[in-house]
Amino acid sequence: MTMYEIIAKKRDGHKLSQDEIEFFIDGYTNERIMDYQASALLMAMFLRGLDEEETFWLTDAMRRSGETVDLSPIPGVKVDKHSTGGVGDKTTLIVAPLAAACGVPIAKMSGRGLGFTGGTVDKMESIPGFRTSLEPQEFLDLVNTVGMSVIGQTAHIAAADKKLYALRDVTATVDNMSLIASSIMSKKLASGSDAIVLDVKTGGGAFMEKEEDAEALGILMVKMGKASGKKTIAVITDMNQPLGNAVGNSVEVIEAIETLKGQGPEDITELALTLSGLMIYAGEKASTPAEGRTMAEEALKSGRALAKLGDFIEGQSGDRRVIDDYGLFPQATIRRQAVAGEDGFVQRLEARAIGMASQHAGAGRATKEDTIDLAAGIILCKKTGDAVKKGDVLAEIFGNDEAKVDGAVKEAMKAFHIGLNEPEIEPLIKKILM
Amino acid sequence: MTMYEIIAKKRDGHKLSQDEIEFFIDGYTNERIMDYQASALLMAMFLRGLDEEETFWLTDAMRRSGETVDLSPIPGVKVDKHSTGGVGDKTTLIVAPLAAACGVPIAKMSGRGLGFTGGTVDKMESIPGFRTSLEPQEFLDLVNTVGMSVIGQTAHIAAADKKLYALRDVTATVDNMSLIASSIMSKKLASGSDAIVLDVKTGGGAFMEKEEDAEALGILMVKMGKASGKKTIAVITDMNQPLGNAVGNSVEVIEAIETLKGQGPEDITELALTLSGLMIYAGEKASTPAEGRTMAEEALKSGRALAKLGDFIEGQSGDRRVIDDYGLFPQATIRRQAVAGEDGFVQRLEARAIGMASQHAGAGRATKEDTIDLAAGIILCKKTGDAVKKGDVLAEIFGNDEAKVDGAVKEAMKAFHIGLNEPEIEPLIKKILM
Repeated sequence: MTMYEIIAKKRDGHKLSQDEIEFFIDGYTNERIMDYQASALLMAMFLRGLDEEETFWLTDAMRRSGETVDLSPIPGVKVDKHSTGGVGDKTTLIVAPLAAACGVPIAKMSGRGLGFTGGTVDKMESIPGFRTSLEPQEFLDLVNTVGMSVIGQTAHIAAADKKLYALRDVTATVDNMSLIASSIMSKKLASGSDAIVLDVKTGGGAFMEKEEDAEALGILMVKMGKASGKKTIAVITDMNQPLGNAVGNSVEVIEAIETLKGQGPEDITELALTLSGLMIYAGEKASTPAEGRTMAEEALKSGRALAKLGDFIEGQSGDRRVIDDYGLFPQATIRRQAVAGEDGFVQRLEARAIGMASQHAGAGRATKEDTIDLAAGIILCKKTGDAVKKGDVLAEIFGNDEAKVDGAVKEAMKAFHIGLNEPEIEPLIKKILM
Repeated sequence: MTMYEIIAKKRDGHKLSQDEIEFFIDGYTNERIMDYQASALLMAMFLRGLDEEETFWLTDAMRRSGETVDLSPIPGVKVDKHSTGGVGDKTTLIVAPLAAACGVPIAKMSGRGLGFTGGTVDKMESIPGFRTSLEPQEFLDLVNTVGMSVIGQTAHIAAADKKLYALRDVTATVDNMSLIASSIMSKKLASGSDAIVLDVKTGGGAFMEKEEDAEALGILMVKMGKASGKKTIAVITDMNQPLGNAVGNSVEVIEAIETLKGQGPEDITELALTLSGLMIYAGEKASTPAEGRTMAEEALKSGRALAKLGDFIEGQSGDRRVIDDYGLFPQATIRRQAVAGEDGFVQRLEARAIGMASQHAGAGRATKEDTIDLAAGIILCKKTGDAVKKGDVLAEIFGNDEAKVDGAVKEAMKAFHIGLNEPEIEPLIKKILM
């Protein structure tokens, strides 16, 4: 077996065997196969496609290409949650405490972010003292005592994926269903949880712009998860406009806290209850998703989820007083407003444009080497469907670099499309696949 | 413009612009674009295809990527000839003297070979003293005085092609019509001749096994040549069995000499007269291909072409006495025979298998670092259609390494398919495209 033969086989549209996929992933991880052969194969895979079996073999080979986490010292059904990413997506910080408050052990690894804002790990680091890097034993102990822990993902999880993703990113081979599914699922499966709830975003601010593509990806990932013996559920959700009102890092943590106080925006609250309900069901603490949802609502209303968030922050050495004193978060020195130039309704609020504005205000990284301004971000004052009058504040944009913030204001303005008719609103939750 | 965008555009099946192709070739030649991006684009080009205009732009960009030869100090219409390669193809050593003897200036660059035997440059080096590397002025002077010169191709001709070919070779992106055509034609066009005669081989021992593929390649290359303002003719010829009886290096030079003495095998003689007739026509020394052929026949019969070969050898410091004393060539110490095991007719004689046997006897390189045994090779005693009796010698195999020669005998045996019925013989010259 040679890499040349594997490339030629896929180039000619034939199905690869499990051995061939294993040979590729193992060889590439261990640097016996060079980038230029891998990228030729990736392009052939992109254009010729992989069937479900090949996709599973790829996922499984990548899962085994690095460290796999053993969560067996934690009793119970551990549930992981993953979002394909969007703008203003702070759900992990809400659903993890909700599910944990209902007895579901959450032992989660999250990533840093490239793009609009930081990732969950970056956001958590806006809490003073919070540690995102723990020794394995401490991580396990926290899940067993507090009920949840969220740490940064090590580079050793699905090592092949890390290398392959970097290569796909520069060779225009990212946007392929099988490659995306295997990338996400290899990491989730290596992370050791027993069940996985996937939030697959669709719309202008999402990776998958078309709903049918998001659904196809969701179906494929659910199949990959089940084929690996894990209960797997995917929820297809709207990402045409940002989720909630806060976009950034510390502002998103604050909005998560507000949501756990029962004062969050309607969309993020609804999504969090749906996802955590499914997590509680997947974690076998409820016998139906509906029962899971009811339990999540109770955990929210009673304040038990908020208390769980506090315990979690404290467990990872963060200052739990942030829950009541938002002044403890990094503060922005520059604040600007984007103001409506006309009367009407917000017809569309482009998630992607708000994401770019957020990044440019300092909240996101363009390259891995960039540092994030944890205080920078955007608060949306109007969202799709809202009536506006000329002079109304559409959004507040803030950060610590005047030029950056001013530039971000102009970009944020362009995200708002104002017109006379009241628009129809897309449903937030489009489909649940299980 | 970025390489990423160019890859994505071709990946999605769109036509690239001349600027984009130029950006790729220039960037890759100058190492601003890395192998892994180039190989992703090559695979996308392979699978999505390039139209004729893109193929021309690619050819032209590669032509300009390195040194271009200025043959203007040579008066007259300079004619180049190229073969896509096969087994036993010693035509350059016959057609160049034939055309030069008829007044066509031949200023040719040839390659070394990877594969079955050496290339023309290797073969010429079996002549004692022969120099294949000349200073540019000496090369031009020889064409002006002797009428012909053949030297090794420098790495500076179509520099992009050299890099790209090496990459295609390991990424399964060789066998694409547009990539093949642009690779061949960029070098031919950079080599400075005014007209080009292409010998496109087809059949089991050729790069293009199917005749329709060979014809499509011929048509495409003729178009590329004409679009560059050069008279271009392609001849589609059979390569199911080896050309002539000799396969190797010095044995092929000897067969070329024999052919110029009027004692060559029928097939190689016929092909040489056809090709040189077309070269004489393309070089404007004859007003029709038929007239060119008649002139070539006269140059052969009169011995003028043989004398031209002698002058050429002497001009490049070779020992012209080889023409009359084959004992001056490198000699093999080991000689073996492949013998028929049954009566019948040679149904098929597989060019590829003979080529492999020749390589393994020592006549060809498997990798660039291998050295060639110039004395090694094969003489075919029977060819397709010949009647054989059990015990007849089918071929002689020789070299200087007993184990290698013995292995080659076994391989050569397998090349002969003997059966009871007299087979039909494929015509040697299938089509002339002009």
